[in-house]
Amino acid sequence: MDNSKIRDYIISPNLYNKNLTQELSGIDHFGNKAEISVIEERPLTIFLNDQEIVTAMTIGDYPEYLALGFLRNQKMLTDNDIVEAIDFDVELNMIVIRTKTKTNYEDKLKKKTQTSGCAVGTVFGDIMDEIEDLSIVPMSTKVSHLYDLSSKINKTPSLYLKAGAIHGTILCHKDKPLVYMEDVGRHNAVDKIAGWIFDTGTNPKDKILYTTGRLTSEMVIKTALMEIPVLISRSGFTAWGVNIARQVGLTLIGRLRGQRFICLSGESNLIWDVDLD
Amino acid sequence: MDNSKIRDYIISPNLYNKNLTQELSGIDHFGNKAEISVIEERPLTIFLNDQEIVTAMTIGDYPEYLALGFLRNQKMLTDNDIVEAIDFDVELNMIVIRTKTKTNYEDKLKKKTQTSGCAVGTVFGDIMDEIEDLSIVPMSTKVSHLYDLSSKINKTPSLYLKAGAIHGTILCHKDKPLVYMEDVGRHNAVDKIAGWIFDTGTNPKDKILYTTGRLTSEMVIKTALMEIPVLISRSGFTAWGVNIARQVGLTLIGRLRGQRFICLSGESNLIWDVDLD
Repeated sequence: MDNSKIRDYIISPNLYNKNLTQELSGIDHFGNKAEISVIEERPLTIFLNDQEIVTAMTIGDYPEYLALGFLRNQKMLTDNDIVEAIDFDVELNMIVIRTKTKTNYEDKLKKKTQTSGCAVGTVFGDIMDEIEDLSIVPMSTKVSHLYDLSSKINKTPSLYLKAGAIHGTILCHKDKPLVYMEDVGRHNAVDKIAGWIFDTGTNPKDKILYTTGRLTSEMVIKTALMEIPVLISRSGFTAWGVNIARQVGLTLIGRLRGQRFICLSGESNLIWDVDLD
Repeated sequence: MDNSKIRDYIISPNLYNKNLTQELSGIDHFGNKAEISVIEERPLTIFLNDQEIVTAMTIGDYPEYLALGFLRNQKMLTDNDIVEAIDFDVELNMIVIRTKTKTNYEDKLKKKTQTSGCAVGTVFGDIMDEIEDLSIVPMSTKVSHLYDLSSKINKTPSLYLKAGAIHGTILCHKDKPLVYMEDVGRHNAVDKIAGWIFDTGTNPKDKILYTTGRLTSEMVIKTALMEIPVLISRSGFTAWGVNIARQVGLTLIGRLRGQRFICLSGESNLIWDVDLD
């Protein structure tokens, strides 16, 4: 991809923010001094009004989208909640989302903490109940678009290409990648996309989500909660991820490399417009 | 690696447990029916005595090592605690670790939950305080052993080679991989190693830990808490991971592929016994 194509992105990889990588010195396999770019990783504690919710380990860009998206994907923020203010304190690594009225989640959380201390990952117990009632509106998807997206995304200059050790999640429309978020945790990258969608009021129902990471239950649940109908990845699947995708009607495509892929959910939504011979 | 070498492992990858993968049907890029092996992912809720601690998403093998190792790496179980019983309920996806006396962590957790609801990841706030006081006993490591380990591990038949979408963590001694754990979360794979070390009373101080995943702060902290002096990976680094490794004196080697690697902490512990010409 030549640089002119970067302009097609609404948000492209954050290559010009010097706070996201560090130049570190060590030695290479010859014993020679080596200097490499290494991805930053810092804590960000997210508050919803007076309630401390979570501390995420993040690269540190777009903290407002990360916080909004995390709370949205936890259903702690709903369409009915009006965000009045977002206060980010860069010194204390803290961000506070303030809503007009107290959210119902604060009561839920108070109850939860009496029985359960902490949770690993970013998908909590009662999110599974939400999934039960969810049904994705299916969207037809051209196979040629999958190939175009994969090719464009892989050629886009990114922190991954510069420093490695980072995941990317990209919101796409048809054959165009629109918003490219990167983070040390793939759940953060997808939460940043969710925050951007919420903040801009973008329609998710005609979009495709691409992730560099694996198609685990967590990624599938977040995509479903975001009401995006298609999730694609260069990586593989977990069985529970596939089962949830089938349950909610999400089109799930993995191992997308070159012209190869495997589709394990929503096969009937694919339009075969490419002749591989 | 021929199969005879598998016998050199104390625990080799769990290829013969049919509960760890599912055969799922979908279609490939030609539109032909495709059946692939997909890794399982299931919740495991860990209790310490009467206290629910965490729900981990795991492949599901060695739940007792995962629970013990998680609690050890959280410092919720210390050398002074005597484990009296481990009750695993496969139907309810629950495991309870029972200690002879109440652990001090139960009080700590009760206090914590009043101010903070949940935590992302498996390293909590006050673990960082523990790291402050920690200092690893340095161990000399031959470069030839790094190459031997990398080659042996990459050739070992594994769930990764069978189904992908899984991380491996391998406990090694000199040039020999000893215990090979795999899991959907790399933190689970390393916790299973920690549980095995605790359960068997194995000396960690002359060991090397290999991970297929990235060298993040979480991985470095866990390795340091386990008192293993060397952590190596085929993947890259995060800056905070490197900084913690330097602080505690851990030898940290990343991007180990073929004969290439980068060492960003503990360079002086390497013995250069390989002539690359």
